[in-house]
Amino acid sequence: VSHRAALDEATLIRRYFDRPRTPAGSGVRLGIGDDAAIMRLPPGWDLVAASDMLVEGVHFPRGTPAAALGHRVLAVNLSDLAAMGAEPLWATLQISLPRPRAAWLRDFSRGLRSLASRTDVTLVGGDTVAGPLTLGVTLLGRVRPGRAVRRTGARPGDALFVTGTPGDAVAGRLLARGRTASARRLRQRFLYPEPRLATGRALVGIATAMLDVSDGLHDDVTKLLAASGCGADLEVEQLPLSADLRRHATLRRARQLALTGGDDYELLFTVPAARVSRLGRVARLGGCNLTRLGTVTARRGARWHLDGLPFRFRDTTFRHFG
Amino acid sequence: VSHRAALDEATLIRRYFDRPRTPAGSGVRLGIGDDAAIMRLPPGWDLVAASDMLVEGVHFPRGTPAAALGHRVLAVNLSDLAAMGAEPLWATLQISLPRPRAAWLRDFSRGLRSLASRTDVTLVGGDTVAGPLTLGVTLLGRVRPGRAVRRTGARPGDALFVTGTPGDAVAGRLLARGRTASARRLRQRFLYPEPRLATGRALVGIATAMLDVSDGLHDDVTKLLAASGCGADLEVEQLPLSADLRRHATLRRARQLALTGGDDYELLFTVPAARVSRLGRVARLGGCNLTRLGTVTARRGARWHLDGLPFRFRDTTFRHFG
Repeated sequence: VSHRAALDEATLIRRYFDRPRTPAGSGVRLGIGDDAAIMRLPPGWDLVAASDMLVEGVHFPRGTPAAALGHRVLAVNLSDLAAMGAEPLWATLQISLPRPRAAWLRDFSRGLRSLASRTDVTLVGGDTVAGPLTLGVTLLGRVRPGRAVRRTGARPGDALFVTGTPGDAVAGRLLARGRTASARRLRQRFLYPEPRLATGRALVGIATAMLDVSDGLHDDVTKLLAASGCGADLEVEQLPLSADLRRHATLRRARQLALTGGDDYELLFTVPAARVSRLGRVARLGGCNLTRLGTVTARRGARWHLDGLPFRFRDTTFRHFG
Repeated sequence: VSHRAALDEATLIRRYFDRPRTPAGSGVRLGIGDDAAIMRLPPGWDLVAASDMLVEGVHFPRGTPAAALGHRVLAVNLSDLAAMGAEPLWATLQISLPRPRAAWLRDFSRGLRSLASRTDVTLVGGDTVAGPLTLGVTLLGRVRPGRAVRRTGARPGDALFVTGTPGDAVAGRLLARGRTASARRLRQRFLYPEPRLATGRALVGIATAMLDVSDGLHDDVTKLLAASGCGADLEVEQLPLSADLRRHATLRRARQLALTGGDDYELLFTVPAARVSRLGRVARLGGCNLTRLGTVTARRGARWHLDGLPFRFRDTTFRHFG
């Protein structure tokens, strides 16, 4: 189905979202251009699907570069698959766009394609319509039966880890006009989040529970523990803070940003004590630091500590724009 | 990934889009509630995917009943799969919604679930965010390898057919306030389009090309012929007009509506002369009339005739709202 109001959809799709040939080995039997796409999943794999939308003024500020949006709408979905330990394969794209501007579409398409190409994702279809700026991707991938890492598997005694340096993305968003090299790097972390696909895959068979940090570490730790029916003792001192973040924030503020800033798309996961020694290899394969924040407990609730005392968490939530 | 701006997304999803148990035999290994859903396609099938969005003020008028929108956003995607001869299985839902109104969500969810249940579709995930009213579904299904009916297979000598009675949907949209029984039936055809799934599947191995009529018969005939590299001689007299449509429109006007009104979601397909005799069974299985409009030719272009003379097609296009 295509819609006439779709700002000459056919032309746009041909120009920016079509691919002359789908890459060999992509499993795509029929790509963009018919009523639906057809793909073949090899035997011995389950199908994985994630769908995330981004709305202007809610998930990104007006004026965000089109290339960053093309990257982001795919990255947030890749992050979901990373958090299952799955491998991405195919994406469909949904764009509602106020006016057909060729320059915007070219940049958006470049941002999307660049990340898709690096992560072996083939764009197989979608819909472009006239409307308020709203972006969505449904990402399909594969995982070996029974091997996906869910949110529900954390057990008392497991160590709780996070990848990378949370807080950078929100700092980059707040430093929209900063001109220093560190401000630019933080802004890059906000505009071009890097989904932790290699880390997620390396954690299959090691992590007992996993999710990706989109709402902020504090809320997402609570979410993972609730899904697993556990609690945890966690140490604020352990929060991995980047040098760039520390350059722009006091220690107290940096910790707040790391706990409450969303849009990090780092992975949060739990590992039984006996498997912690295997994380060195995971860190090498994934190319990012893994930091232990605390230990899962049978007693419910996330208990954060600082200097051995209960940490009074001030909810200075950084909501999305708008 | 879920977003904090998402109007207590977790609660909404639990209340309206969760399902306590996914039906046995649905192939769903992990449904709504984790970072991604996991499904299993049985061996010997290819995966089919379609993605369509609907934007308020563009694809449906403000004030359209929520139940009709829940039905429509799934129906337009089902129609895409019908046009491939595929079987639907799983859907992810993307909703951007200005305010979380429980009554709206309840009705929307009812409309969606009612059609999903009738068509054996399981909702496996999605995203609910705060923003302008925009609805999207990515629908996944299955088809036997090499058996999908594409747009490209029409050949000279094939007969060109359409299902049902096109023009009803646009008449129903125009008769938004009509109180007669026929006006109500036409409005129903606009608000609750019935995807031709059974007909589409029955046409596998019979039709050489197929698509669903969303932009209007005239434009979509042209699209099918262009994709197949053919033309056709077509007779305006053959247009199947419903009694309800004729009650509200002159013959001339009814034909115009049938040719240019969008949103019919009927199927348009071509069949080699030698297989036309098999269409009686298709009509019975699909429960809808099949009407021959003309014959495919090697000479390019759609040539419509009326009373043996070239039909001057007046382009009184009925664009989407807005």
